[in-house]
Amino acid sequence: MTDFYKGKKVLVTGGLGFLGSNLACRLAGLGAKVTLLDCLLPGHGGNLFNMADFKKSARFVKGDIRNKPLMERLVKGQDVLFNIGAQTSHTDSMKNPYLDVDINTRGQINLLEACKKANPGIRVVYCSSRAVYGSVSKRVIDEETVPRPLDVYATNKLAGEHYHRVYAKVFGLNATILRVANGYGPRAQMKEPSFGILNWFIRLALDDAQIKIFGDGKQVRDYVYVDDITDAFLKTGRNMKIPGETLNIASGRGLPLITIVKEVVRLAGTGRIVHVPWPDTNKKIDVGDFVAEVSKAGRLIGWRATTPLRDGLEETIAFYRQNKKRYW
Amino acid sequence: MTDFYKGKKVLVTGGLGFLGSNLACRLAGLGAKVTLLDCLLPGHGGNLFNMADFKKSARFVKGDIRNKPLMERLVKGQDVLFNIGAQTSHTDSMKNPYLDVDINTRGQINLLEACKKANPGIRVVYCSSRAVYGSVSKRVIDEETVPRPLDVYATNKLAGEHYHRVYAKVFGLNATILRVANGYGPRAQMKEPSFGILNWFIRLALDDAQIKIFGDGKQVRDYVYVDDITDAFLKTGRNMKIPGETLNIASGRGLPLITIVKEVVRLAGTGRIVHVPWPDTNKKIDVGDFVAEVSKAGRLIGWRATTPLRDGLEETIAFYRQNKKRYW
Repeated sequence: MTDFYKGKKVLVTGGLGFLGSNLACRLAGLGAKVTLLDCLLPGHGGNLFNMADFKKSARFVKGDIRNKPLMERLVKGQDVLFNIGAQTSHTDSMKNPYLDVDINTRGQINLLEACKKANPGIRVVYCSSRAVYGSVSKRVIDEETVPRPLDVYATNKLAGEHYHRVYAKVFGLNATILRVANGYGPRAQMKEPSFGILNWFIRLALDDAQIKIFGDGKQVRDYVYVDDITDAFLKTGRNMKIPGETLNIASGRGLPLITIVKEVVRLAGTGRIVHVPWPDTNKKIDVGDFVAEVSKAGRLIGWRATTPLRDGLEETIAFYRQNKKRYW
Repeated sequence: MTDFYKGKKVLVTGGLGFLGSNLACRLAGLGAKVTLLDCLLPGHGGNLFNMADFKKSARFVKGDIRNKPLMERLVKGQDVLFNIGAQTSHTDSMKNPYLDVDINTRGQINLLEACKKANPGIRVVYCSSRAVYGSVSKRVIDEETVPRPLDVYATNKLAGEHYHRVYAKVFGLNATILRVANGYGPRAQMKEPSFGILNWFIRLALDDAQIKIFGDGKQVRDYVYVDDITDAFLKTGRNMKIPGETLNIASGRGLPLITIVKEVVRLAGTGRIVHVPWPDTNKKIDVGDFVAEVSKAGRLIGWRATTPLRDGLEETIAFYRQNKKRYW
């Protein structure tokens, strides 16, 4: 991996957020010349502390993918763009769909137009979400499943996928799409639950608080540790031969939510699980059971998730114990 | 149909365009209280002459679905909204994707938010496009086919579908989605080819000009006459029991393009067919052979296309012969 990334110029949008900063940290370690872009959208995951470990070996630009001249300046001369910046809250996208549309559709077009104009040879990796599938009755979901997004956020992430595929096909842009499953790990915001429920449960456990599980908790989830997601980004970024392809990035193994949460409580040594009835709104936009088929990523980029749940949870718990005041 | 629509308050967006004005004409004839909204987007199909036949029995509002206070005022008190207004040019969507995003994603959200706030009980019929499927290797395409849009326009129409489905599921909006195949008939713009190639070929035939067919012309197309599309809108609008459903609206029969164009030339008595090589850009965004499976529309709204190609072409040719100066 070092062979490829050492000295490479790499731009990460959403670079101070959960996925972006973990990726940027690794890139900096590999010797890449990393630029992080983040608009620090209030209430989102952007956090300057996320680059504390590598701030001397990366450049941070506060700015927005909706800013056209800025995007043209930033993409110019870059080798790889990891396009992770987004409005990422499901519930906010239903309360204020305009903001989601502005960032996740218009903003994405803006970024693609900037690449087309200022750097048509750039390698682009677009971070999409397993949310595009919505509620699917199949138990194992491959990339040929019909997406049925359940909210405005997921609809717009799907549009973002198609924009990247269209620009790959029509304009020859070397863009690849990753449909990333629920992630967990260090550097995520921990102030509220809407961006990732497993990290939120970890906070509740560390606070020795009640962890409310909707229903019996038997809904199956496919959680993937952030280091595995980072690997998937890196492997996709160095593979120049899969423009327009879409890959599931997930553990490929489903576990009942209740099993995962029990493990969190056990490893943290604190926190209590309580079962509560499903709130009406959550039930309506819940995606149901989900396990992703990940063999395509294995085939095309030689990737699979390798971190055992226990290891991922232990690292996550240790990180937040140590850095609580930066995230609480 | 009169029983349902007589006295009903009906709003048609894109009401001066091709599909909207044909529908509005029929609605006015059925005794509905019709309001047409159209922003007369330059270069698009909006044409005041399209309502010449029924201008005394309908109200026209010049305005834009992107205007929030206007949309709230207009949807208030309406029984049915036929949501047809859109940026509809494939090629323009690739040249200026911002405009397409603004109208076809943000504009649609704006309209749905207006319904949610000012008239949550309104019946909504959203006009989507078979373009959402893109290039599909299956010969007969049903609604369970994975959409792979080939341009920004088709991507955003697909996003518009999902918005309507999401608002139906989450907010209880009674919205249904029609994926309309290539249409032809009276009241379409005839100034340029990018909105519908069959009508354009009819113009060329009437002008006794060359009709350029890309390649051998054996690409299979599913053309549906506008009166049949109007029937589909009307039948969907009166069916209150299919929120969130998506229906193909097409003839269900495929014909090679060359066969259709030969019929145009024969019926017009003028025009000459010439074969030319595929231009690169067209090839890249061409959808390939397409025939839609239409049994779901048969099952849910009791609709199928009934106009023979010959009859549709004859009526279309007669209309434009008589009204040439209004459309050329």
